[in-house]
Amino acid sequence: MSREILETFQNPAPERDYVIEHVAPEFTSVCPKTGQPDFATMTLRYIADQKCVELKSLKLYFVSYRNEGIFYEAVVNKILDDIVAVLSPRYAVIEGEFAVRGGITSTVVAEYRK
Amino acid sequence: MSREILETFQNPAPERDYVIEHVAPEFTSVCPKTGQPDFATMTLRYIADQKCVELKSLKLYFVSYRNEGIFYEAVVNKILDDIVAVLSPRYAVIEGEFAVRGGITSTVVAEYRK
Amino acid sequence: MSREILETFQNPAPERDYVIEHVAPEFTSVCPKTGQPDFATMTLRYIADQKCVELKSLKLYFVSYRNEGIFYEAVVNKILDDIVAVLSPRYAVIEGEFAVRGGITSTVVAEYRK
Amino acid sequence: MSREILETFQNPAPERDYVIEHVAPEFTSVCPKTGQPDFATMTLRYIADQKCVELKSLKLYFVSYRNEGIFYEAVVNKILDDIVAVLSPRYAVIEGEFAVRGGITSTVVAEYRK
Amino acid sequence: MSREILETFQNPAPERDYVIEHVAPEFTSVCPKTGQPDFATMTLRYIADQKCVELKSLKLYFVSYRNEGIFYEAVVNKILDDIVAVLSPRYAVIEGEFAVRGGITSTVVAEYRK
Amino acid sequence: MSREILETFQNPAPERDYVIEHVAPEFTSVCPKTGQPDFATMTLRYIADQKCVELKSLKLYFVSYRNEGIFYEAVVNKILDDIVAVLSPRYAVIEGEFAVRGGITSTVVAEYRK
Amino acid sequence: MSREILETFQNPAPERDYVIEHVAPEFTSVCPKTGQPDFATMTLRYIADQKCVELKSLKLYFVSYRNEGIFYEAVVNKILDDIVAVLSPRYAVIEGEFAVRGGITSTVVAEYRK
Amino acid sequence: MSREILETFQNPAPERDYVIEHVAPEFTSVCPKTGQPDFATMTLRYIADQKCVELKSLKLYFVSYRNEGIFYEAVVNKILDDIVAVLSPRYAVIEGEFAVRGGITSTVVAEYRK
Amino acid sequence: MSREILETFQNPAPERDYVIEHVAPEFTSVCPKTGQPDFATMTLRYIADQKCVELKSLKLYFVSYRNEGIFYEAVVNKILDDIVAVLSPRYAVIEGEFAVRGGITSTVVAEYRK
Amino acid sequence: MSREILETFQNPAPERDYVIEHVAPEFTSVCPKTGQPDFATMTLRYIADQKCVELKSLKLYFVSYRNEGIFYEAVVNKILDDIVAVLSPRYAVIEGEFAVRGGITSTVVAEYRK
Repeated sequence: MSREILETFQNPAPERDYVIEHVAPEFTSVCPKTGQPDFATMTLRYIADQKCVELKSLKLYFVSYRNEGIFYEAVVNKILDDIVAVLSPRYAVIEGEFAVRGGITSTVVAEYRK
Repeated sequence: MSREILETFQNPAPERDYVIEHVAPEFTSVCPKTGQPDFATMTLRYIADQKCVELKSLKLYFVSYRNEGIFYEAVVNKILDDIVAVLSPRYAVIEGEFAVRGGITSTVVAEYRK
Repeated sequence: MSREILETFQNPAPERDYVIEHVAPEFTSVCPKTGQPDFATMTLRYIADQKCVELKSLKLYFVSYRNEGIFYEAVVNKILDDIVAVLSPRYAVIEGEFAVRGGITSTVVAEYRK
Repeated sequence: MSREILETFQNPAPERDYVIEHVAPEFTSVCPKTGQPDFATMTLRYIADQKCVELKSLKLYFVSYRNEGIFYEAVVNKILDDIVAVLSPRYAVIEGEFAVRGGITSTVVAEYRK
Repeated sequence: MSREILETFQNPAPERDYVIEHVAPEFTSVCPKTGQPDFATMTLRYIADQKCVELKSLKLYFVSYRNEGIFYEAVVNKILDDIVAVLSPRYAVIEGEFAVRGGITSTVVAEYRK
Repeated sequence: MSREILETFQNPAPERDYVIEHVAPEFTSVCPKTGQPDFATMTLRYIADQKCVELKSLKLYFVSYRNEGIFYEAVVNKILDDIVAVLSPRYAVIEGEFAVRGGITSTVVAEYRK
Repeated sequence: MSREILETFQNPAPERDYVIEHVAPEFTSVCPKTGQPDFATMTLRYIADQKCVELKSLKLYFVSYRNEGIFYEAVVNKILDDIVAVLSPRYAVIEGEFAVRGGITSTVVAEYRK
Repeated sequence: MSREILETFQNPAPERDYVIEHVAPEFTSVCPKTGQPDFATMTLRYIADQKCVELKSLKLYFVSYRNEGIFYEAVVNKILDDIVAVLSPRYAVIEGEFAVRGGITSTVVAEYRK
Repeated sequence: MSREILETFQNPAPERDYVIEHVAPEFTSVCPKTGQPDFATMTLRYIADQKCVELKSLKLYFVSYRNEGIFYEAVVNKILDDIVAVLSPRYAVIEGEFAVRGGITSTVVAEYRK
Repeated sequence: MSREILETFQNPAPERDYVIEHVAPEFTSVCPKTGQPDFATMTLRYIADQKCVELKSLKLYFVSYRNEGIFYEAVVNKILDDIVAVLSPRYAVIEGEFAVRGGITSTVVAEYRK
């Protein structure tokens, strides 16, 4: 869950605003209340400024949540904070679609604009 | 059907406008006219201010409609009123998609802006 | 085809602009040219002012077109006129999606704003 | 509803057992109990012997049920009887998939082997 | 939950083995352990002997489970027993597809042959 | 390919801006380069002024391209020109979705506003 | 429509019974009765003996039906006869799924076994 | 990963062969080679003899694999062995559909018959 | 990967702003880091000025990336630069949807406006 | 294309006949006639005897076809021969579903039984 896991590389086209999206359907963490696992499709969509996130490090960053207890609303906001801190993007949005719990499916979407 | 069932917790990121959505495909109530059950997918989408709704209490609140007689248009507006009263959100929308009756499928959507 | 079939009830939340949608996939009328039946999914979407349309009467109103000869463009506009006359809604749209004829699928959409 | 509407033509390949299927998603009749319309997708699948059914006459035969009151189980068996009487096929099956009534979707399937 | 709710009518084609299927996506009962509602799509498929089940009574029979506590395996077997007792069919199968609980979707299928 | 094939009828509701759409998934012409057939779903969507296009004549107009050699970009623009010339619509758009050639699927969309 | 268009190549694995399938969603011919075009997805599935059909020649063979008038039942049987004559396959089946005409979709399936 | 987690209850209809299926799309374990998480939809389908598996204990049993290193082929066979040892079913099958790795999706299916 | 592969033809309707889209689901290149192939659906959508891209040359241009090592972000921006250089379009967008790697699906979208 | 690339490991449950399936939607080779790339989803399904195929080596084996010219029928039979030679399975099937060429989609399926 540490943002140090995230690695970056130099944006190859910083003169242009363009959109990069990574969709990770294998995100899993643990419910702090019940101790049972939660599952989500976690999506990062951003417009890079000088830095892009390296794909393998993003995967490892997501995997680092596997045994951590954290609520839906908190995890989406924390991931957005980490991405903003590491990439300083022009724009970023995190979208977490969580698997059904108690017959209810939940989605949390948080965005950042420079 | 009492809004006292709804519990809240402190919004973990009140400095940011972000969207939380809960989709409940197992909503059921009773038609006041025929006494027969109605079924719906009930969706709550909102931007929290200081309070978020706790997921399990939301489920129990929806379950409390199970044997109550209430019309489509009324139930959607009542749920929105309850959510607004309990959460004081910056924005909220309730969307009820009701199962086919007499060959007709109905949807009611009501929203609130602070 | 008479708008007298349509019954109304008092809008339970007239202080709020909210959307009500009824989708009727079993609409059928007759082609005035060939005498053969036409089939459509007929959708009514509206923002009520003081009156909402009662669901069962809407069904019977749609059924009353069963053996009437009327063209696609005419039927959608007539239904919209009837809804506006009976409900005086703040907004209404009628959408008719007609089944394939001569290899062509047709849709007609007409809307009204107060 | 009279089987005289059905026209036939000479099977172009009677030396071979092959399957012909016609799917009619626009079948409609009337419920004898409620007087309200029923809707179905009616499928005829058969192996011709000497005669094939002419497509346009099949359509008109299906249309002739439009204002007749007849139950699900009865209509499927009557259509099968008519097809067998008119075509003397080697094999025939009628499948009626009826639209939802009272929250329940029904299918009736009857077959004939020479 | 009493089989007396089920009404029958005379099979219009007892000389023929044919299949009748009713699919009810609005089945709901209560979990005896947690007291929370369960939801299922309940399917009855059968070959009638002398009697067919009347559709509206089947709906009311399913609705009668609404507030009863009963497990997945028990409810499917009980419905099959009731259908066999009331219809004496040549063949019958009950298929219950239950909505996700604890991240797991369950299906129970029981059949009867005379 | 001649616009004379297109017939019109008087718009039944000229006082209102409403949308008429015809989708023809059976459009076919010939590639002028290879001589091989091209296939497309051709969609016309328009807001009529005084005239609507008659459906059967539209079908025959589309069929008239069957053995004509014409490129994707040209055919969509020519159909739009013909529709505008014959209907004088308030708005019109032609959308051609062409079947895969060389592993590539192409779409051309041209619109007109009075 | 001449079977001479079909070219073959030597089966690379004649010691083994294996299945080859070609699906052509762009088949079109003409209705002999109305003169209007028909459209179908034509599928050939076969077990080769010594010869396989060359793909490009199969395409040209299908294209050769473009302006020929021929009925559904006849065209499927003729294609099967041609394939059998040219390939002498161990097994072959032709499946023609024809686009909706008069609200009815038709499929014809003929097979051959050596 | 210990089969002691699995709890059972008495089969309510042991006189009948009927099928029970539980589908768990949230199964996850760890690849012993790379240390990275694997994901699967794990399905158990069985015909009970005297004992049925209790649903919540099945969930906990699946969750117990979360941080264990085990290969695809091994995990499916081990689950089947555990189910057979605990339930002594008349029939059982385990189906594991594993998420894409290296561009390849894998499924392993093992079954047991008494 | 050289833009010289791209051929153009004269826009047949330069007086009108209209959209041309080409979707290529068979794009493949090589990951510069692992040496393993990458796969994408590459979409070009543009409004031509004086020149349109010839379809076959576009295919060959995409094929030329087959054995080249290039990152996701770089390849989408390079294709956009090449299209802009060769066509001088009024508008162009390149959308690359890359197949799953490490459980993550990525999309890169870059656009140009004159 | 050399079968030496394929690595194996010891079947963990050789006492049982069970099915292993690997689906590779990223298979690509070259058409020997046109020099243009072909694309396929290549599926291996087998019942292991003593040896299972190692997943990463299977991927590399498929990748080795990337720049080889080989026909549809030949490649499926060659892969089956290689799998049989390396694994000596109890049963194996290879299914290649090739992307559309000339408007035709092809599938080749070959199987082996010990």
